[in-house]
Amino acid sequence: MMENAETSDQNRTTRYTNNLANGFHNPQSENGDCVSCGSDGGGLDGSDSGSGSGSNSSGGHNGIENFHHLHQDLHNNGSPAKRCKLRRRLDSGKKNRPPFPWFGMDIGGTLVKLVYFEPKDITAEEEQEEVESLKSIRRYLTSNVAYGNTGIRDVHLELKNLTMCGRKGNLHFIRFPTQDMHRFIQMGRDKNFSSLHTTLCATGGGAYKFEEDFRTVAGLELQKLDELDCLIQGLLYVDSVGFNGHPECYFFQNPSDPENCVKRPCSLENPFPMLLVNIGSGVSILAVYSKDDYKRVTGTSLGGGTFLGLCCLLTGCDTFEEALEMAAKGDSTNVDKLVKDIYGGDYERFGLQGSAVASSFGHMMSKEKRDSISKEDLARATLVTITNNIGSIARMCAVNEKIDRVVFVGNFLRINTVSTKLLAYAIDFWSDGQLKALFLEHEGYFGAVGAFLELLKMTDDS
Amino acid sequence: MMENAETSDQNRTTRYTNNLANGFHNPQSENGDCVSCGSDGGGLDGSDSGSGSGSNSSGGHNGIENFHHLHQDLHNNGSPAKRCKLRRRLDSGKKNRPPFPWFGMDIGGTLVKLVYFEPKDITAEEEQEEVESLKSIRRYLTSNVAYGNTGIRDVHLELKNLTMCGRKGNLHFIRFPTQDMHRFIQMGRDKNFSSLHTTLCATGGGAYKFEEDFRTVAGLELQKLDELDCLIQGLLYVDSVGFNGHPECYFFQNPSDPENCVKRPCSLENPFPMLLVNIGSGVSILAVYSKDDYKRVTGTSLGGGTFLGLCCLLTGCDTFEEALEMAAKGDSTNVDKLVKDIYGGDYERFGLQGSAVASSFGHMMSKEKRDSISKEDLARATLVTITNNIGSIARMCAVNEKIDRVVFVGNFLRINTVSTKLLAYAIDFWSDGQLKALFLEHEGYFGAVGAFLELLKMTDDS
Repeated sequence: MMENAETSDQNRTTRYTNNLANGFHNPQSENGDCVSCGSDGGGLDGSDSGSGSGSNSSGGHNGIENFHHLHQDLHNNGSPAKRCKLRRRLDSGKKNRPPFPWFGMDIGGTLVKLVYFEPKDITAEEEQEEVESLKSIRRYLTSNVAYGNTGIRDVHLELKNLTMCGRKGNLHFIRFPTQDMHRFIQMGRDKNFSSLHTTLCATGGGAYKFEEDFRTVAGLELQKLDELDCLIQGLLYVDSVGFNGHPECYFFQNPSDPENCVKRPCSLENPFPMLLVNIGSGVSILAVYSKDDYKRVTGTSLGGGTFLGLCCLLTGCDTFEEALEMAAKGDSTNVDKLVKDIYGGDYERFGLQGSAVASSFGHMMSKEKRDSISKEDLARATLVTITNNIGSIARMCAVNEKIDRVVFVGNFLRINTVSTKLLAYAIDFWSDGQLKALFLEHEGYFGAVGAFLELLKMTDDS
Repeated sequence: MMENAETSDQNRTTRYTNNLANGFHNPQSENGDCVSCGSDGGGLDGSDSGSGSGSNSSGGHNGIENFHHLHQDLHNNGSPAKRCKLRRRLDSGKKNRPPFPWFGMDIGGTLVKLVYFEPKDITAEEEQEEVESLKSIRRYLTSNVAYGNTGIRDVHLELKNLTMCGRKGNLHFIRFPTQDMHRFIQMGRDKNFSSLHTTLCATGGGAYKFEEDFRTVAGLELQKLDELDCLIQGLLYVDSVGFNGHPECYFFQNPSDPENCVKRPCSLENPFPMLLVNIGSGVSILAVYSKDDYKRVTGTSLGGGTFLGLCCLLTGCDTFEEALEMAAKGDSTNVDKLVKDIYGGDYERFGLQGSAVASSFGHMMSKEKRDSISKEDLARATLVTITNNIGSIARMCAVNEKIDRVVFVGNFLRINTVSTKLLAYAIDFWSDGQLKALFLEHEGYFGAVGAFLELLKMTDDS
């Protein structure tokens, strides 16, 4: 009758110091060298900081010295840890930065988000020496926009000309359904990914769930990272470097006036405190006080997975894109019972407009009404219901935490103008303009970026 | 794209002094004379408090004097207001109490709740003089438990041996779907209800929506009352008189231990402050500081109407009873994505058990999973989703308002043990035992009782 499983209120509040804060310095966007590499601060030229591998230290920025020696070492020499250290000097051409390939991965309940750094400053020599599997990964990822049946690169999100740990390159954003994770791990095995000895930094629940599969199937050890830590670090980083010269952040001007409601870029400069609402399969709401001080205020299990799951059931659609397309054409007022359907007009005493929803899906208890609505109406009602519920809970949290900026992220907002505008409207209207809803262009990728940043912080000692 | 209709956050908080407070004295359960009648305080023997009708005042408790004279007056004399005043002395046998029949009505978004006071102290003489239509109403209502196709008397809720305005009798609780309201109004016309000149006290949105129909179709003027005012007054009254010698209120002992979770009666004695969560078609959450001081903290459009509407769509059921019956047999974990489905276990850092729901309906985006679940599973998941969402929002409100008692009412909880236990569990678990969930036996009828109490307060002047 009453299993634990039935409790979804995800809201014990514990304040955390961000686990990822050590050694991570706030990005310096002026010089483009965005994150520190290793605990020594990550200068462009660093000497071996003493892990005792005894091998030669590399020289200039892009130089690869003693490649053949190192390459020999790689195959013949010592423990996995030692081989890994040697590899550090190999494909990224520099000590105290990890070897290529550089990935960050966020394995969520619905989607895997992968960010990949493509070095654009590879010298001819370096390219010549690059191991085949590494080259093949680079070419495969950067010359395609779709992978297999379900992998997609969000080309429009690519961050260009970043300098990270002394290497210049582009950051790519790739996603695929979590249900294809086993195929991905098998591909890692087939491509002998483990021979590259890169550290695979992964966050999201799947980093835990699939850890054993990565190890046993593909011979890969995951560096597991907390998803909320990564979310915050990734968000702050992307916001600080900007979106190819444009701001990462935007809001809606005139949110309460549909005719004149327009998207406007803005800066997150001086971002604290902020209420961060991450809408993935479920929803987490964080109060972020500084880059390494935040708490998870609450959560709700009614998130993007609820929207898509219900839409599939109610309309027979199969994908998020289909669901949103239908929702864009539907009219939720055929499905929902509005205040005016009950009152005949406004419920004035408590400031409820007749057009407000009194009971989501409230008309659907009537067979007559059920027979008169379209799938599009149902999709719209589902979207509006989930979105308003999140907006309402977020607003309550913002008021209680006394935070006036509410930042919405997560892949539920991808290609989802209905929800972003509705959230902007709801937050503005119900707070009498006291609260402001903000959005970020890279929506669902911040966890993966945060995991990627962790990779760059790893030193020989780690 | 963004109509007003899409905003359902119902949460502007304004603090109100209860409109109904004037002249309403706290029930005195010792002597059984529970509410004051009229602004003069409602003694058993009152003289005409001076509205100037000039007719004879009545004598003893149950005596009807000059009945024929009054009866003549009724048909021949003066304005509707004056006739109404005359009727006051007629069928309830007493000045300064309204004429029979005594009703209170709450016309909600889904259900009409009707309470009817059946006088049990009618003398032979009184019965003889009782007008036929009044007698017919009394006999019809008290000798049946079902009315038409959809009206139902909740016999088990009948409150016996009440003394109200000096009359002894029983309070009956009747409900029918709001969609049958027009048939009800037509019946009022057909039975010539307006000839009884009783005041019809009505609350709920339908009191506004159907006011014009009552007037034009049935010749009846409604006395419209605010639903939240009525809810509070009705609740306090029923709790104070008790449930036929037993407490009206109950809670669950050991809410976190399904094996040993048992319903226990309790008292609402010293009930303030309380967080009052009214789950009808939608949900209103009130912080109640005293009998006439409260505010509406927030609301959500995801309520009982959402549960029933979605269940009808997802399972093809037609009634609340069917929906609950299916839900009782289902397993929501086949439908919802749990924390362990994403993490492989608990998400320890933030205290989320593996068995907690991460994404309601989150499994349903997979065709394979959709093909493997039952209607019962869907019904259960719908019930659990709606219930947990309400529990979560209520918990947040309680914390913010610093109120540790959360009282859940409304017809969503009728015959709904799954939800009451789940609410009790969620409130206890997520507050670490700091908050307590309470429930009331007359669940959805308090608004109607509050409207009924207003009728008894009406004087010749009102």
